Amino acid sequence: MTIARTICLGFVAVIAIGTLLLILPFSTQDGSWNNPIIALFTSTSAVCVTGLVVVDTGTYFSFWGQLIIMLLIQVGGLGYMTTTTFLILLVGRRFNLRQKLAIKESFDRPFLQGNSQNIIQSIIATTLLFELAGVLIMLNVFSSKYGTLEGLWLAIFHSVSAWNNAGFGLLKDNLMSFTGSWSINFAITMLIIFGGIGYQVIIEMYLFLLHKINKRQERIVFSLNFKVATSTTLLLLLGGTAIFFLVEFNNPDTFTPLNLKDKILAAWFQSVTSRTAGFNTIDIGQMTIAGLFTTMGLMFIGASPGGTGGGIKTTTLRILSDCTRSVLRGNNEVVLYGRQVPIPLVLKAVAVVFGSANLVIFMTFSISFIEVSLNPIFFDEKFNSLQVLFEVISAFATVGLSTGITASLSSMSQILLVITMYTGRVGVLLLMAAIVGDTRPRVVQYPEETLLVG
Amino acid sequence: MTIARTICLGFVAVIAIGTLLLILPFSTQDGSWNNPIIALFTSTSAVCVTGLVVVDTGTYFSFWGQLIIMLLIQVGGLGYMTTTTFLILLVGRRFNLRQKLAIKESFDRPFLQGNSQNIIQSIIATTLLFELAGVLIMLNVFSSKYGTLEGLWLAIFHSVSAWNNAGFGLLKDNLMSFTGSWSINFAITMLIIFGGIGYQVIIEMYLFLLHKINKRQERIVFSLNFKVATSTTLLLLLGGTAIFFLVEFNNPDTFTPLNLKDKILAAWFQSVTSRTAGFNTIDIGQMTIAGLFTTMGLMFIGASPGGTGGGIKTTTLRILSDCTRSVLRGNNEVVLYGRQVPIPLVLKAVAVVFGSANLVIFMTFSISFIEVSLNPIFFDEKFNSLQVLFEVISAFATVGLSTGITASLSSMSQILLVITMYTGRVGVLLLMAAIVGDTRPRVVQYPEETLLVG
Ligand SMILES: [K+]
Ligand SMILES: [K+]
Repeated sequence: MTIARTICLGFVAVIAIGTLLLILPFSTQDGSWNNPIIALFTSTSAVCVTGLVVVDTGTYFSFWGQLIIMLLIQVGGLGYMTTTTFLILLVGRRFNLRQKLAIKESFDRPFLQGNSQNIIQSIIATTLLFELAGVLIMLNVFSSKYGTLEGLWLAIFHSVSAWNNAGFGLLKDNLMSFTGSWSINFAITMLIIFGGIGYQVIIEMYLFLLHKINKRQERIVFSLNFKVATSTTLLLLLGGTAIFFLVEFNNPDTFTPLNLKDKILAAWFQSVTSRTAGFNTIDIGQMTIAGLFTTMGLMFIGASPGGTGGGIKTTTLRILSDCTRSVLRGNNEVVLYGRQVPIPLVLKAVAVVFGSANLVIFMTFSISFIEVSLNPIFFDEKFNSLQVLFEVISAFATVGLSTGITASLSSMSQILLVITMYTGRVGVLLLMAAIVGDTRPRVVQYPEETLLVG
Repeated sequence: MTIARTICLGFVAVIAIGTLLLILPFSTQDGSWNNPIIALFTSTSAVCVTGLVVVDTGTYFSFWGQLIIMLLIQVGGLGYMTTTTFLILLVGRRFNLRQKLAIKESFDRPFLQGNSQNIIQSIIATTLLFELAGVLIMLNVFSSKYGTLEGLWLAIFHSVSAWNNAGFGLLKDNLMSFTGSWSINFAITMLIIFGGIGYQVIIEMYLFLLHKINKRQERIVFSLNFKVATSTTLLLLLGGTAIFFLVEFNNPDTFTPLNLKDKILAAWFQSVTSRTAGFNTIDIGQMTIAGLFTTMGLMFIGASPGGTGGGIKTTTLRILSDCTRSVLRGNNEVVLYGRQVPIPLVLKAVAVVFGSANLVIFMTFSISFIEVSLNPIFFDEKFNSLQVLFEVISAFATVGLSTGITASLSSMSQILLVITMYTGRVGVLLLMAAIVGDTRPRVVQYPEETLLVG
């Protein structure tokens, strides 16, 4: 079995187990057997750390149901983080020897010089450490409002959900009653950012700190992945905050009632959460169209590779944006921070964006048609195609933000969303590779011929 | 002066002359001096063959004004067709010798073995031939409705406008009163398609026909450009027709009143016109959101290189889509119809799409902000950011379709649209090359390092 197939089937297996567990009566609040579509949707949403919901997690599911959901999130997030971290080594297979060496070199750091077991242990330890910190920061706010036991459970659940960029919440209005709370905003956004930036980046930061503390003399060399992921993340976070602040400033349904400090905090939170976390402190359904488009853009880009987040990834965006800059300057190679990006990687970046965009367009049209043909009166096309597009991007990039239509969609559309969440999580390329199987690279050399573009 | 600068300044010069002529009193219907912004906007829209208008061409401008507009369209369209046809030879400069030979080979056909004067003469002859045919087909319909002289003028103006993919019309409702007319639909769509498919493709078709008529034995070899342009155009036209038929079928403001034949005809017309012509037989402002998104997609893709149309071009789309297919199959080169596409061209295709998307996003945000800050009450953000996006894509791809907001925008926004039309016409890459000037390609060789994408 190819590696791609193993990963794809692994996710299917966990989703299936989750679905079965969530169907059982002990999972629901009222103790009855659960609707299989609801169980499948919730399990997929949890394992793919998406966070789209068709029922209210906090009131529909029992404590056991909620615990299962939290464990599915943890397994899904850890599984994704581990496989993508390993994948960086495995993608080297089709590269030539020189590229293979470059890949090895980027991993040639003390913490990875052990075997794969060490890496997995290190990832789990990192995860638990961050989640514990999240619980400690949020515990006070939650327990002062909901009592110690309930508060502890809320803190644990939200900490796990945030680190894994899952966006599941137990409160009816997600985090909208904490729009102005410093500690909740701080804990949740930090967990989201670090969970989404990738394990490799965190380890390099940790090594850098160790280095500084021990006052070592040798110069530390950050990997290209570190430089690209951190700089792009920072740029998107600050840019997103500024744009949300501007476009929602005059919206009476979102920002107008807030004071300046809360406006900035809400803009920051929205900027962080759109990049695949999926929590919300403002009502997405009431955002301006400009705000919705900004959110869709940030969602589509998503987080960094090797983390828990989704989307096309910051590195993909940077490769394409640098490719543009290179062409404008008359160069034919892509150079980031003094390192040349191999051409196969540029082609792969194109494939990721093009394949993802096609998936989103196909699903948006399919769901729109299903809804129109099932219920032309309910479905006001003037408004809802945009909402469907938003929903599909949110599902694809495993974000989980919604304008509020998820639960009212037909079962057929919900199943299409399940497929979108799954495909978005394992990745269009990996899924296709799993379906197609191992292909032999083309040996025929075709003559070159050029075309005009643009 | 670099070639890029010559082309960019050439367009500026023609726009400036057009603006001055359209300011003069003899251009307007009421004989007064024209508003400079209106003159600038109309001249840019005509030279860039966009077709966006801030005043009604047929009633605001005098016959002389209309004649000037028609000549600006003809000069703009011919100029673009000629420069892009030549550019296919000039882009070879930075390629290596092998690629240069491939380019030469694709042009190594009898009709081009003369000097550049022959090519220009041939382009002008082709243009006049097609426009004449258009006039003859449409004359009957127009003159039976508006009288011989007025009918002739309408036929000439619309024929020139259609061949150049300009989308300018003299009738108040564009072509909405001819939704069901076979001859108008046939003439306009044929002119649009052939004007937009590129001179090289037309010549190869002509040679093929000659070949068949003379019953020659040797096999004719079509260029890669021919195969890509024709197949992609056909696919987009038929796909577009099917989607418009489906999404507008139940829209009482567009398709519902039409009978089946007229529905198909209107869907076909909309599919053809979205790909940079910009005429309309249905009211764009009343389309469904799905219809608007489809139109935006087709507009952004646009026509083929070496024609009169705009957009990122069919060839660009095909290169990226084939790149995706190659990556999915585990290959690291882009192959179209048994020909390998050089990597610099793939990078250029990325730059075209990425640069264009950024321009569209930047302009949409800028215009939205200007309109909101100038008039928060008039500008209902819930609806109009989408309209602004539509308008900007239409301007960028020199399409000229509008949901009807062009005239009500502020002068500042209209000037931004002028810049968008101009940049969209000369192309983001060419304009940047003109601004930056000749750059020396990078000589330093950077070490390779890989990243994870997607
Ligand atoms: K999420
Ligand atoms: K046009």
